[in-house]
Amino acid sequence: MTLDVVFFPFGLAPGDCAGRTVLVVDVLRATTTICAALHHGARAVIVAEDAGDASRIAQVLDTTDVLLAGERQGERIPGFDLGNSPSEMDEASVKGKTLVMTTTNGTDALLATAGARDVIVAAGVNLSAAAARARTAFDGGGDVLVLCAGRNHGFGLDDAYIAGRLVVEVLGGSRRRRGLNDSALVAVDLVRRYGDRMERVLALSAAGRALTAIGKHDDLVAAAMVDRHPVVPSYRDQRVTLVDAGGRP
Amino acid sequence: MTLDVVFFPFGLAPGDCAGRTVLVVDVLRATTTICAALHHGARAVIVAEDAGDASRIAQVLDTTDVLLAGERQGERIPGFDLGNSPSEMDEASVKGKTLVMTTTNGTDALLATAGARDVIVAAGVNLSAAAARARTAFDGGGDVLVLCAGRNHGFGLDDAYIAGRLVVEVLGGSRRRRGLNDSALVAVDLVRRYGDRMERVLALSAAGRALTAIGKHDDLVAAAMVDRHPVVPSYRDQRVTLVDAGGRP
Repeated sequence: MTLDVVFFPFGLAPGDCAGRTVLVVDVLRATTTICAALHHGARAVIVAEDAGDASRIAQVLDTTDVLLAGERQGERIPGFDLGNSPSEMDEASVKGKTLVMTTTNGTDALLATAGARDVIVAAGVNLSAAAARARTAFDGGGDVLVLCAGRNHGFGLDDAYIAGRLVVEVLGGSRRRRGLNDSALVAVDLVRRYGDRMERVLALSAAGRALTAIGKHDDLVAAAMVDRHPVVPSYRDQRVTLVDAGGRP
Repeated sequence: MTLDVVFFPFGLAPGDCAGRTVLVVDVLRATTTICAALHHGARAVIVAEDAGDASRIAQVLDTTDVLLAGERQGERIPGFDLGNSPSEMDEASVKGKTLVMTTTNGTDALLATAGARDVIVAAGVNLSAAAARARTAFDGGGDVLVLCAGRNHGFGLDDAYIAGRLVVEVLGGSRRRRGLNDSALVAVDLVRRYGDRMERVLALSAAGRALTAIGKHDDLVAAAMVDRHPVVPSYRDQRVTLVDAGGRP
């Protein structure tokens, strides 16, 4: 029964995901945006490696209910229907649609989860719901890994803080530290340091500052709205869908 | 004028080291051991990629004053003269010798510094001396990067804490946070959290627990002796030597 954090996909050793419940976090903004889309009625979000891959997948799907979504350097990819902003994922835009999405960091993290038992998309907007799912696995003797997307393959304060919040929730308020890896210890320390001031931490992070610099500070504010979209999106075979009430994806 | 931390070599983007003063940290144990060796009179430490590379370099040097040093999984490499323990680096063993050394994590970090202006080997045992060198560069308008070796390509609490101590020293006690990257912010938070209890942090880390498990807890205690070996080892072209009084390697 382990509860580990990995700060970015390059930090994964082979087999790290095997058999585990993995929570993937890219709070600014991919996993926040996926939660918003599914909460507002999107049927599925298909994760593509890059813009070309996304376009090919959209063509293969061959339906009018497909939307292309994604960003590079924070901006909507030219020719795409949507960017990577949670505010774009309103019911009018996404209900009943299948989104094909590619983003700078979040996509890589999801694609890195090969071998996992269960992959859950986690963010601030679904913090309690995602953590509850992982806690059920953990309390049942399962191994849990929180995988941060990070930033440009490096450490991101924003995701690390959310990872800490998730670890605290999975532990159910216990002060247990034994069995946590070094990254999990530090993630919990971040929660101790910043408390529940999520918006402040996001604003302090490099990802947050970059968003503000391109005029998308509203997305940061939206990402800090805890439990606004209490969904449990499950990822499998490049596809994110909602877990049903019975716990099955 | 930047002051960044990178938690492990895989987190480096191309060009991250270019033109910078880079402090390389692998406190358990490579950089601690290098400081001990040079402080006790070793002429140089040559860094080799692996055991085979080390043996080849030793043959090419063609002198009786060469010692092979290194570990895998914490234990001395079979056939080598020395392991990777600071306690082995006493004057009787290393004075006047050239060491050819390979270790699991520290070596990779040093080899990753291509393009740096200046690379300094840093640890707890030379904390003030290494930080002073970087501070001179920083105060003169230079860019400083603290590169942690990390653990098995992942995050290591031990190195991250030392990185925080170095950042605090380079900042000279100022509370300045602007310009620090996300990793540097977290490293400084670790110092705030653990204060000067270096031995405690090292013992809490996965690397420290692994050392204790193989009966080498003394090495951890030695690594926590702040400023015990106040040298400034400079790395260039696979070779670590002491910086002379004039600041030149």
